[in-house]
Amino acid sequence: MSDQTIRILTDEECWRLLATERIGRIAIESGHGPQIFPVNHLVRDRIVSFRSGAGDKTMETFSHPRVAFEADGREGDDFWSVVIEGRVELRDADDPSLRGALDALVSFHPTPKPYVVDIIPELISGRRFQPRHPASLWGG
Amino acid sequence: MSDQTIRILTDEECWRLLATERIGRIAIESGHGPQIFPVNHLVRDRIVSFRSGAGDKTMETFSHPRVAFEADGREGDDFWSVVIEGRVELRDADDPSLRGALDALVSFHPTPKPYVVDIIPELISGRRFQPRHPASLWGG
Repeated sequence: MSDQTIRILTDEECWRLLATERIGRIAIESGHGPQIFPVNHLVRDRIVSFRSGAGDKTMETFSHPRVAFEADGREGDDFWSVVIEGRVELRDADDPSLRGALDALVSFHPTPKPYVVDIIPELISGRRFQPRHPASLWGG
Repeated sequence: MSDQTIRILTDEECWRLLATERIGRIAIESGHGPQIFPVNHLVRDRIVSFRSGAGDKTMETFSHPRVAFEADGREGDDFWSVVIEGRVELRDADDPSLRGALDALVSFHPTPKPYVVDIIPELISGRRFQPRHPASLWGG
């Protein structure tokens, strides 16, 4: 609306902001409509990663590998949101190149998580704005 | 993981928590993979609504009307997440039955928003858990 100032983020700003949040949401195609669920993610080398188990919904992405990922947050009075569109690649969590990187990741399901899902970005976009009445937007 | 207590929410808890958050994310099917974007939503009569303009991505849902919606937040030390799967219906924002209900809604894009998108739920699910180390999850 005209009472808001919206600013498009550069790629660098998108990646910086993504790394400040631990919770993102992934959207996948299940074959009968999109599904969405939160993940505890990690950003490294311009790839977004999260842990997954064999029975997780994430596994459905290997028949529909295109996904979208979103994270958002506040910085000062500003609201920001970053979206990635890309495809997923599965890795073994024992992969030596991941050593140490996964320690910060927890999972939202109590099942074993032997895999790491990498989201390989094809498009990243973000925007931030300052609501005229931040309290009304944020429920304060 | 085994160090977390995860609790499945009742429908009543899901609706109560959804109404405490103003920001949710909708996942739609675009024909070439899922898309996801944040919306400022309103809950009334077990329907989730948000504003939309004619040029918005939301309009793509009328060729793929199945959508998923997610909102999450904290309550105390707990993290919660609620997901709806359903279909969208478009309404005119001038619809008298909406009078007053939309005043709290703002938009994340500076374009006119003559429509209201209702998400008619077919499935609602939610869960909450208390991370063993909330600060690590929440970046604190």
